[in-house]
Amino acid sequence: MRPAVCALELYPDRLRLLDQRRLPLEETYVDCYSHHEVAEAIRSLVVRGAPAIGVAAAAGIALGVRQLRPEDDFPAAFAAICETLAQTRPTAVNLFWAIARMRACVERHQGAPLPELQRLLMAEARRLLEEDREICRRIGEHGLSLIPPRSTILTHCNTGALATAGIGTALGIIRAAHYGGRQVHVLAGETRPVLQGARLTAWELQREGIPVTLITDSMAGSLMAQGRVDLVLVGADRIAANGDVANKIGTYSLAVLAQAHRVPFYVAAPLSTIDANTASGAQIPIEYRAADEVRKVGDRYIAPPEVEVENPAFDVTPAHYIRALITEAGIAMPPTAETLAALQRAAASS
Amino acid sequence: MRPAVCALELYPDRLRLLDQRRLPLEETYVDCYSHHEVAEAIRSLVVRGAPAIGVAAAAGIALGVRQLRPEDDFPAAFAAICETLAQTRPTAVNLFWAIARMRACVERHQGAPLPELQRLLMAEARRLLEEDREICRRIGEHGLSLIPPRSTILTHCNTGALATAGIGTALGIIRAAHYGGRQVHVLAGETRPVLQGARLTAWELQREGIPVTLITDSMAGSLMAQGRVDLVLVGADRIAANGDVANKIGTYSLAVLAQAHRVPFYVAAPLSTIDANTASGAQIPIEYRAADEVRKVGDRYIAPPEVEVENPAFDVTPAHYIRALITEAGIAMPPTAETLAALQRAAASS
Repeated sequence: MRPAVCALELYPDRLRLLDQRRLPLEETYVDCYSHHEVAEAIRSLVVRGAPAIGVAAAAGIALGVRQLRPEDDFPAAFAAICETLAQTRPTAVNLFWAIARMRACVERHQGAPLPELQRLLMAEARRLLEEDREICRRIGEHGLSLIPPRSTILTHCNTGALATAGIGTALGIIRAAHYGGRQVHVLAGETRPVLQGARLTAWELQREGIPVTLITDSMAGSLMAQGRVDLVLVGADRIAANGDVANKIGTYSLAVLAQAHRVPFYVAAPLSTIDANTASGAQIPIEYRAADEVRKVGDRYIAPPEVEVENPAFDVTPAHYIRALITEAGIAMPPTAETLAALQRAAASS
Repeated sequence: MRPAVCALELYPDRLRLLDQRRLPLEETYVDCYSHHEVAEAIRSLVVRGAPAIGVAAAAGIALGVRQLRPEDDFPAAFAAICETLAQTRPTAVNLFWAIARMRACVERHQGAPLPELQRLLMAEARRLLEEDREICRRIGEHGLSLIPPRSTILTHCNTGALATAGIGTALGIIRAAHYGGRQVHVLAGETRPVLQGARLTAWELQREGIPVTLITDSMAGSLMAQGRVDLVLVGADRIAANGDVANKIGTYSLAVLAQAHRVPFYVAAPLSTIDANTASGAQIPIEYRAADEVRKVGDRYIAPPEVEVENPAFDVTPAHYIRALITEAGIAMPPTAETLAALQRAAASS
């Protein structure tokens, strides 16, 4: 199964990104030839979604190295390129994981001539992209076991083809269920302030004929109380070693509401989202974004232009709210330090 | 204390309404000379907020009767005027309560000549407006006892001078606390889809220098988890006899989140919001509004224009989530059939 949309295309000289800021009304592309352009695209949300950010960062490094000349100080220049990409967004750990992969590639080939390193890094970026596609496919396969034949699934933000290089994480499972003949109906929370649910998820699902109803984030509780939500399924930007999950702001509210209504709450994410170096959610750095994301929609102020605003892009859902974490290596049910470690061991030994 | 803004001004020949659709960027007024114009203003949200809708409807009836001629069939014309206003919005019971007050006025003066009825109905509408102002003042006084000296108060929608003829219900209490020297800080949920929190509450509070921070509705849970919300204080559109509360969509989610975090959840409303004829929340009619309220912000689509949408304007919060209901006659803590009936008896005998 191939999704009808594609967030990233990697060419030898550029990364072509679908400009997600302009969706759903305009379908335009941004070509990035340098690591600076990729960094700016990540920061400004041309591309977003934890796995897609990781792939874009790897591509950005390969493109940055491509522009180096033999007389440049490679170690210093490479470190600077990696640092430029590391500075874009603090929460999604896939970004740092992808940068570490590119660094490891250089370390494995220390002393190799520049053209060789350029070729190797571009190949590694391409490998990350292909791997991400395969990871999404497997997440979909594993997740399928958790989706009843007829299900109304509430999701948040966008975790689909626009957030990954493949069919998506949470939306990948929904795609797998839909194409596997289950009757799924998606309730897409609009996901203020940036409206990824309204602009991206509704658009992406509608294009493939997957039934979707758009709601405001504030409607979730009421729909659960009416028994109209069978399960909640979201993605993740970083998962602490104990299973706590940082994800798009509003995820925590949904998890608490789901528990209060005995609705199962699932998280889907690649293993690269698990950060073994972060003990619990309390240590996950939360990105605060510009106040105007809340004060404005598009170019239009919807609030007094100078009103004080709080704008965390993410919140943390403690592991005990999560019935299961679905990864490419299988399902951690429930996610705990032990079940997560077991999945990672299984993946390492396979 | 007089609020810095005024939603409704009743003149002998017209009702002047602050056009709340255009706030906060434009401060313009709509003059309604007929009951048709008032009905359209209520329907299109030029004026909103349960108590303000009630006052506007009473004024609309007085203006409709003002345009009758001696040769008209008064009972039929009066019934039609009342019906036009009753058809505007189904949930806020203050609308029906106000219409009933105007009908009772006519019944008390059956057979009176038209000029006399015109004078009496305009006086009754003015009385409702003045009463609402006084009710808000008393709600503020009673509610003050529930506000600690330093409090961060989460509120939803708009319950202030823009929703009433006075200082407001929930915002009336916040005003009373602020002007009474308490240090209150308001967290205003933006209240998608119509954004009354962002457009109205943030604007209204900022104009009076009451500290306010605007948040998206999805941030409430995370802020409660961080211990940053001392209490939740909202209004009501209809309260069933058992204490269940219909209020702006999203209220129920806040109530469940508040209970999960042991944050007190309070409702402020005039006694006219209590509907003795509705046994429980399940019987309250919920208004569903146009899909484009969710698909668009202002003139701009933020979602695929043809995506399916769910758009209930209200939800129902069961009484057991509510620590107290604050009315002009005192506090029902917790609201139950018994405590509500006791308040109404107290009010009737005073």
